[in-house]
Amino acid sequence: MKFVLIPDSFKGTLSSSQICSILKEEIVKLFPKAEVAAIPVADGGEGTVAAFLEAVGGTTVDVTVKGPFFEEMSSSYGILADGTTAVIEMASCAGLPLVEGRKNPLKTTTYGVGEQILDAARRGVKKIIVGLGGSCTNDAACGLAAALGIKFYDKAGQEFVPAGGTLASVERIDFSGRSPLLDGIEIVSMCDITNPMYGPTGAAYVFGPQKGADDAMVQELDAGLRHLGALLDSCTGVPVSTASGAGAAGAMGAGMLAFLDSKLLPGIQVVLDIVHFDSLIKDADYIFTGEGLLDGQSLCGKVVSGIANRAALQKKRVIAIVGGVKDKEIQDVYRQGLSAVFTINRLPQDLSVSQTFSAENLRCTAADILRLISVSK
Amino acid sequence: MKFVLIPDSFKGTLSSSQICSILKEEIVKLFPKAEVAAIPVADGGEGTVAAFLEAVGGTTVDVTVKGPFFEEMSSSYGILADGTTAVIEMASCAGLPLVEGRKNPLKTTTYGVGEQILDAARRGVKKIIVGLGGSCTNDAACGLAAALGIKFYDKAGQEFVPAGGTLASVERIDFSGRSPLLDGIEIVSMCDITNPMYGPTGAAYVFGPQKGADDAMVQELDAGLRHLGALLDSCTGVPVSTASGAGAAGAMGAGMLAFLDSKLLPGIQVVLDIVHFDSLIKDADYIFTGEGLLDGQSLCGKVVSGIANRAALQKKRVIAIVGGVKDKEIQDVYRQGLSAVFTINRLPQDLSVSQTFSAENLRCTAADILRLISVSK
Repeated sequence: MKFVLIPDSFKGTLSSSQICSILKEEIVKLFPKAEVAAIPVADGGEGTVAAFLEAVGGTTVDVTVKGPFFEEMSSSYGILADGTTAVIEMASCAGLPLVEGRKNPLKTTTYGVGEQILDAARRGVKKIIVGLGGSCTNDAACGLAAALGIKFYDKAGQEFVPAGGTLASVERIDFSGRSPLLDGIEIVSMCDITNPMYGPTGAAYVFGPQKGADDAMVQELDAGLRHLGALLDSCTGVPVSTASGAGAAGAMGAGMLAFLDSKLLPGIQVVLDIVHFDSLIKDADYIFTGEGLLDGQSLCGKVVSGIANRAALQKKRVIAIVGGVKDKEIQDVYRQGLSAVFTINRLPQDLSVSQTFSAENLRCTAADILRLISVSK
Repeated sequence: MKFVLIPDSFKGTLSSSQICSILKEEIVKLFPKAEVAAIPVADGGEGTVAAFLEAVGGTTVDVTVKGPFFEEMSSSYGILADGTTAVIEMASCAGLPLVEGRKNPLKTTTYGVGEQILDAARRGVKKIIVGLGGSCTNDAACGLAAALGIKFYDKAGQEFVPAGGTLASVERIDFSGRSPLLDGIEIVSMCDITNPMYGPTGAAYVFGPQKGADDAMVQELDAGLRHLGALLDSCTGVPVSTASGAGAAGAMGAGMLAFLDSKLLPGIQVVLDIVHFDSLIKDADYIFTGEGLLDGQSLCGKVVSGIANRAALQKKRVIAIVGGVKDKEIQDVYRQGLSAVFTINRLPQDLSVSQTFSAENLRCTAADILRLISVSK
């Protein structure tokens, strides 16, 4: 028997890696000879590099870069076992936990992320994966771009590094200085949201408040994004500002499109590619996935449906173990290839009560699913 | 494929019969050619006759008997398809709903139950099943006994029919008038509790309050039971008053032992016998059972463990679908023969919220179990 485990985290209770461990332990108890491939799923936010390294192996690269307020800081990213793919999580040097108590999306920068990208490029990688998520910034990747040699000028012709509060001052962008080290490198951004760059569903309005912006600041940030967005659209000849995901991570999505010609892909698609999912499951008997809540949103590129779709191509069995399921919203997932869904709620308890027992509930549920598989063979 | 469905009710939300219907509908959707045997489980209380008739067929017998306050009332019992087994639920003429607004365990009688037994005996049945449960009485089956010809006398030598409030006045019992129609008939009482006749865990203290007894009345009832218990023990030469289940249904258990030499059996055992469970499952692929809460108490004769034990003898697969499970308390049930347990809690919700969706939650859970079975074959 071969099992492939590839669960999303249960947000707030269990990490993907913890879920993998519990499932693997229960599988080995009942099927001691089973082969188990465990793939913790990275979502682009904090823990993305660790998840990739756990899934496929590789090394951590330590590098000193600029932090959210342009201060020097130690950071790290990963180079995967293939030696040609770097994985960077922007949260490592532009993440919200780094500015706890001093949040300010007018000032914070993604400059360090650009330095990490440059460092990886110098090491000769052919592909760089950038996880968008958990950011404290709203600079549309202008800091990142500056680190790569792209130059920004104001009305007076003065060069500067734009941050959230100075985007409106950008009069001209000069792409010509972009480091040639980047030429020929494939850049992929992990991005699970579809928000545009600005406007009521854009970066500032939707994500500004959690980064410390009050109403007035949200309006200021949004105006800056709107100004820069028009500039990026005209510079690149592509409507990056309205692209799906352009608003991700303080409009990092738009910047990744404009400055690095990056693809924006749902995190799970990137993971599936990196782990060579299609070949990994060729001889698998069961694929176990899951997420905290399986609902209508799960149909749009989230983990369970992403896996069900891929597994369906090989007619593989896919079992989802979830914290909750809104059955009426997910009937399509069965048609997409999901074999069955099971919830871990061993007792009728509110999440505020049951989250304390998530690990044990998951373990018991997994054991029962495995028992049923065992007797049904 | 053959499925045998034999679930207990989910108390307060779904009847056994409703659960059977939902499971059957989902089975037929996925396995249109499957054979499905559905056995609603009677527990001795209200609905017991209907459940037996639904499970094995038979006819309803209407009979006028005395109600809880000795008033004439219409009632009915069942004669099963074999023509030789009667099923009586005491709740039909001595049940709590019949005295709503005028509960009084000092006065209420089981006389009508005796009349039903006699009616069945006249029709030539060889076996009578009496469901103990849902009663409004505390008369230790003295009313029932009187209906069968057993005579009770007080100190003055006056014959009377004892009720809860006059048990202490019984000075002598004369069994000699017991109807000879009863000779040779096997009497079986369905009884899922183990309480003794009297004392702190006896009928009056534990069940008196729900029948309308205040503290003083509970003490009066308990004293009456204690007096009668000693008399029954000495009359029969058997310690019926302390027998397990003697306290069931207002000490009906003790009376059934003393007056009718009845066996007291857990309801599920009686059901399993009547439906010829062992032969029913011989060619079954899956047995589905379940109950509201699967916990430590489930190990003592309750439905799931009763079925797991029987099915284990034939190494059959048993799946329990439950409202909740206390995993730490039920590990023995797996060793007894249970294959796997699944809960119907599709979302982490308190029972007060989720009970509204019990039917739909059960349906979705069953569908997922069946899908897993389907792909695992």
